[in-house]
Amino acid sequence: MQARMNLMNHENTPEEMIKLLGKAPKVALFSHVSPDGDCIGSMLAIGLALEKMGKEVSFYNPNSVPSYLSFLPGSSRIRQELPNPQPEILLFVDCTDLGRVNLSRSEISEDSTVLNVDHHISNLFFGDINWVEPQASAVGEIALTLISKLGVEIDRNMATNLYTAIVTDSGCFQYSNTTAQTHRSAAALLDIGVDLPNIHHNIFDQKPLAQIKLLQCALNGLEIHAHGQLALMILNAEDFQKSGAEQELSEGLVNHARSIAGVEVAVLLKEVGPREIKGGLRSNLWLNVNEIATLFGGGGHQRAAGCTFRISMAEAKLSITTAIEEALRLGRDH
Amino acid sequence: MQARMNLMNHENTPEEMIKLLGKAPKVALFSHVSPDGDCIGSMLAIGLALEKMGKEVSFYNPNSVPSYLSFLPGSSRIRQELPNPQPEILLFVDCTDLGRVNLSRSEISEDSTVLNVDHHISNLFFGDINWVEPQASAVGEIALTLISKLGVEIDRNMATNLYTAIVTDSGCFQYSNTTAQTHRSAAALLDIGVDLPNIHHNIFDQKPLAQIKLLQCALNGLEIHAHGQLALMILNAEDFQKSGAEQELSEGLVNHARSIAGVEVAVLLKEVGPREIKGGLRSNLWLNVNEIATLFGGGGHQRAAGCTFRISMAEAKLSITTAIEEALRLGRDH
Repeated sequence: MQARMNLMNHENTPEEMIKLLGKAPKVALFSHVSPDGDCIGSMLAIGLALEKMGKEVSFYNPNSVPSYLSFLPGSSRIRQELPNPQPEILLFVDCTDLGRVNLSRSEISEDSTVLNVDHHISNLFFGDINWVEPQASAVGEIALTLISKLGVEIDRNMATNLYTAIVTDSGCFQYSNTTAQTHRSAAALLDIGVDLPNIHHNIFDQKPLAQIKLLQCALNGLEIHAHGQLALMILNAEDFQKSGAEQELSEGLVNHARSIAGVEVAVLLKEVGPREIKGGLRSNLWLNVNEIATLFGGGGHQRAAGCTFRISMAEAKLSITTAIEEALRLGRDH
Repeated sequence: MQARMNLMNHENTPEEMIKLLGKAPKVALFSHVSPDGDCIGSMLAIGLALEKMGKEVSFYNPNSVPSYLSFLPGSSRIRQELPNPQPEILLFVDCTDLGRVNLSRSEISEDSTVLNVDHHISNLFFGDINWVEPQASAVGEIALTLISKLGVEIDRNMATNLYTAIVTDSGCFQYSNTTAQTHRSAAALLDIGVDLPNIHHNIFDQKPLAQIKLLQCALNGLEIHAHGQLALMILNAEDFQKSGAEQELSEGLVNHARSIAGVEVAVLLKEVGPREIKGGLRSNLWLNVNEIATLFGGGGHQRAAGCTFRISMAEAKLSITTAIEEALRLGRDH
C-alpha cells in the first residue's frame, strides 16, 4: 500500500481504467455508507455491464439498501460482507476516500488494483487509477460514459439504475450541479426506455408517514419575521415523539419555509437534547448564512449552514432571530 | 371566417407557418387565460425571435402575468388589450381553441391569418395553419424548433423563456409527458447559458404564505384509512378563511397525501359552499380513480379525477371512503 500512496496524484486516467476493466475476469464494486440513489444506481449499472461482458461481479455496501431503492435491478445482490478473497480489481463508486466505505487501507488486499470513480471535488484520488469529474451532477453521468467506453450496449436495467442515479443526485434536475450534459445523459437513458412513472413513484412518493407528521408540527410552529423575509420553524423534542420521526426525517423540511414568497432566509430550530438546539439555515438569493452560523460556532456554505446552541429553545430562537434581522437590516451591500 | 372553417383540417403544416412568419412585417401573439409558464414563456420567446428578425410584435393575454413569471424577459410588454388594428398574422400559443383566449371568431379580423401552435391532444385545429404536437411536454419544445427553423440564433432571453416553459409544463421533468426530446431541448437551452438557480427560485420558491397555511390545515385534517392505502385530507370553509387562501391555492396539496409510503390513493375533500364538497382524487399505481369519481357524477383520468358532492362534509367523507375501500378490497384484478 505504501507504494500506492507514493504514486498518488490527481491525474484522471479513464482510458487505463477501461483497459483494466476490459481484461479483468473478476471485479468487486463498493459504494458508500448511508447509500443514496447515485452510489447504488451507478454501482449496479457498472456491475451489470461488466457481467454482460462475462465477468464475475460482486457488490458491497456497508449498509443495507434503503427500501425506496429496492426496486433497482440488481439491488438484492448487494452484500454487507466484504468479498473474500478480494479480486484483482476493486472499483469504488461515489466515494471521496476509503473511509466512506468504512474501510482502512489495511483491509484492502495489496494484490488488488483500486479504481476510483467519483464526482466530489473533495475526492482524495485514493485509487491506483482515478476518474473524478467534479462537474458531473452524479456519478451516474460518468458511469454512462464508462459503460459506453466498455463497448457494452446499455439495457433497460442499467438505464433504470443510471437514470435513478442522475435524478436523485441532481435533485430532479433542479440543483445547481445540473448541466446540459446532465440532460443529455437523461435523454440517452430515456431513449433506451426507462419506466419514468415507476421510477419517480419509487423515489419521490415514499415519504414515511412520520415525516409528514413532522412537517405538520413544523408548519404549526411556523413564524414569519422581518417583514416576511425570515421564516422560522421550530421542532421540539415532543414533536419528534408525537410524530414518531427520527431526527434525520427533519432533513429538507426547512425548504417549505424557504419556498414562501418574499422569504430570503429560512431557519429550522430542532431540539435534539436537553438545552441542545440544532439550527439549520437556508437563504435564497443574497444573505450569507455561513456568516450567521459562524457567529454561533457553526458554519457551512453561503446558502446553507448550521450551528448548535447549548441554551433553551426560547433563547436560541431569540439569538438567531436577532442576528438574522440585523443582517437583513444591514442588507446585501454590507 | 366561414371560408376558414370549411378549410379546417387536422394537418400540421409547420413549413407553411415558417414561410408566412418569415414574410410578415407585423405579428400579434396570443396566449391563454390563467396564464402559466408554458404559454407566457413560449409566446415571449417566439415574439423576441420575430423582433430579432426586424418585425413589429405585440403580445396579448386576457389576464395579467402572474407575479412568479414577471422575471421573464419581455413579460412587461404583455397587454390585456387586443391589438388594434389586428396585423395580418395572429399567432396563438398553447391554446386548444379561441375560447382559451376569451375570444370568439367574430372578434378576429377576417383579413388576418390565424396560426395555431399547441401541444394539447384536444386542440381543435382552429388555425388557418396549425402546428400541434401532442407528444411535446410543452409548447416550449415546439417553439424551440420554430425559432430554429426561422433561422434566428437563440439568445439568453429567449432561452430563459423557453426553459421556463418546459420546466413548468413538464413538472420539472417529472410528469409522464417528459420525453428524451424534452431533455434534449433543456440541454440545448442550458448550452446557451440560462441562470438555472434564478429561474428555479422564481418558479418554485414563490409560494403564497396562505398556501403554506392551507397545507398546514390539510395536514392537520389528514386521515389514513384502508391499512395505509388511502390518505384523506379535508379542508373546511373555515380553513380557507383562517389561512386567507383562495380556492385555487388548494391545487396540488393532495400530492402531499399521495406521496406517503404505502398510499395508493389520495383524496382531498374541500368545502366550497354550503353542502357543496369538491373531491379531488389521485392514485399512484393501479386504482382507477376515474371509476370512483364517476360513481359520484364526476370523472377525469385513471390517476387523477374529481367529483362534487351536494351533501355534508361528513356524508361526503363516508361516501368516498366507503367506495374507495371497496375498490381497494376488490383489488387490481377486478
